[in-house]
Amino acid sequence: MSSTDTRLRTLLAPVEADLEVVQAELGEMLRGSEPALREMLAHLTRFQGKRLRAGLVLLCGRASGNESAELPQVAAIVEAIHLATLVHDDVLDGADVRRRVASVNRRWDNQSAVLLGDLLYARAFDRSTRLRSRLASQVLSEATQTICRGEIVQAASRYDFEMEPSRYEAIAGAKTAALYGAACDLGARYPDEGRGPGELLSGFGWRMGLAFQIVDDVLDVIGDAEVVGKSVGNDVEDGKVTLPVLHVYAHAEPAIREAIRDAYTAPRWSGERAARLRQACDLGPGVEHALERARTLVEEARERLVTLPETAARYTLEQLGDYVLERKW
Amino acid sequence: MSSTDTRLRTLLAPVEADLEVVQAELGEMLRGSEPALREMLAHLTRFQGKRLRAGLVLLCGRASGNESAELPQVAAIVEAIHLATLVHDDVLDGADVRRRVASVNRRWDNQSAVLLGDLLYARAFDRSTRLRSRLASQVLSEATQTICRGEIVQAASRYDFEMEPSRYEAIAGAKTAALYGAACDLGARYPDEGRGPGELLSGFGWRMGLAFQIVDDVLDVIGDAEVVGKSVGNDVEDGKVTLPVLHVYAHAEPAIREAIRDAYTAPRWSGERAARLRQACDLGPGVEHALERARTLVEEARERLVTLPETAARYTLEQLGDYVLERKW
Repeated sequence: MSSTDTRLRTLLAPVEADLEVVQAELGEMLRGSEPALREMLAHLTRFQGKRLRAGLVLLCGRASGNESAELPQVAAIVEAIHLATLVHDDVLDGADVRRRVASVNRRWDNQSAVLLGDLLYARAFDRSTRLRSRLASQVLSEATQTICRGEIVQAASRYDFEMEPSRYEAIAGAKTAALYGAACDLGARYPDEGRGPGELLSGFGWRMGLAFQIVDDVLDVIGDAEVVGKSVGNDVEDGKVTLPVLHVYAHAEPAIREAIRDAYTAPRWSGERAARLRQACDLGPGVEHALERARTLVEEARERLVTLPETAARYTLEQLGDYVLERKW
Repeated sequence: MSSTDTRLRTLLAPVEADLEVVQAELGEMLRGSEPALREMLAHLTRFQGKRLRAGLVLLCGRASGNESAELPQVAAIVEAIHLATLVHDDVLDGADVRRRVASVNRRWDNQSAVLLGDLLYARAFDRSTRLRSRLASQVLSEATQTICRGEIVQAASRYDFEMEPSRYEAIAGAKTAALYGAACDLGARYPDEGRGPGELLSGFGWRMGLAFQIVDDVLDVIGDAEVVGKSVGNDVEDGKVTLPVLHVYAHAEPAIREAIRDAYTAPRWSGERAARLRQACDLGPGVEHALERARTLVEEARERLVTLPETAARYTLEQLGDYVLERKW
């Protein structure tokens, strides 16, 4: 277990008991009666996740004094939706490895991975319809739409080296921050349909999620697959121009710009495109710029917590920002 | 417009006004704000469907005296889920054409098609959470799971030439009949969570859907792409052994069996596998057997209607069986 793992585990300690309920719920959702399905679902349990989104539901619940006994179920549904997005992401990226385990598309095939993702989405929604309040169904079906929209717009924006940073953030936000926002929102106000502290904490979640995605994008261009535990360099392979690259490109001479574009479109036999990108330019300032933006977002996220009572949960939420910024996977 | 089209249109005439509301609702669901998305969603409106599932919701509503004003919305949600399954099906099958229009995976790519299907599912669930009763969310998220399970088990059963007919029916039923059953069930009892006439009509829908799928499987092995309006021969290409083939195989000599297996696994450059299958054996008895089974199912479906009041809607439901059996696409 890496030091990042240990650190997150320590941070989540206040909600550890509830996280075990989440894990059991998720285990239920990953059960299948037919042998073919059982094996695939069981494989997903090996994608040992950070359970960060589940943690956010529970911590935001604690931090806002929400005493709903259904929060662990809500958290498990959020994790199941996240898992479904991962399974489909791996198909879209042609990724081989996810958390050191073969991706579903690699272990089986793309067809199975598409279907398994669909099944997980449907199962997550099904569970949500069995909760006492409809709020989780509403918030999560909306967040799922936002995620898909973000991915579609991202696919349509490939090789756009002159994208405005605001557009990059809208895409990254939709892809990742929407589910963080939904997790925090539900933690704060489920089962109550009124806004209350949901508004505040959903804004906290959105910023944390966006910071998380920016760090993810940085790790994808400079990270080590061994440490990250999943394929890296996917964004470059796939034509996704992320914040660190956008920043370098915007400030580069024409010749460097050309080299950057060439790296993104180099024939696959000529080697890893991410490696070529690192040779084509100094990514350092882009990485620094991106991490600076992530730090600002975490700062803004924390500011949203100041009116909450000073509880252990609030303290953990504050600390999670550092984890997001410093994580290596 | 083919005579089959005209016939279905005539059959659906009693609910034509409500079907226009369905169409408008579906149009709403297929609206997108971002240009990339707008174009893809607009493309889906060109998959001019039969709207049979929507028709079933409305007709079962009429036939059981259900006066809920939300039935057209429920019907539009059912159609949206059906559309999502089609978009993903085309990815899974690598299909080029859907209702005489390029499939999403062909017009764009697999990635976009996976995401667009996900978005449609999420949008359909989102709409369902805005209805007065949660019943549609519950019934449809369950049906969607069943569809995915059916597809997964089917993928795991490829090249199984000795499959029991009951297993074939369980798969075909899950893939197709589940949504028919859900449509009829919701038509009969939405918004009421009690069972009432839902039980009866859900059984009617299941049998009609299974008959529909059997006819679909027959068209896939013997149909003409021009008439069917979508790629045919996919099942053979993809190793899916359907009822007509299972029947022929079960009654064939070893040499014919071998020729059938060879047709399914012939190298792609050697020509269409479905054409080779037709050369390898006489599919006639298999087709006749399959259609006989479909006729029995339609008969059983009709028997479920006898206790309902004699209305125009009930008469149409009875007639729909002939349409299902005789349709050419």
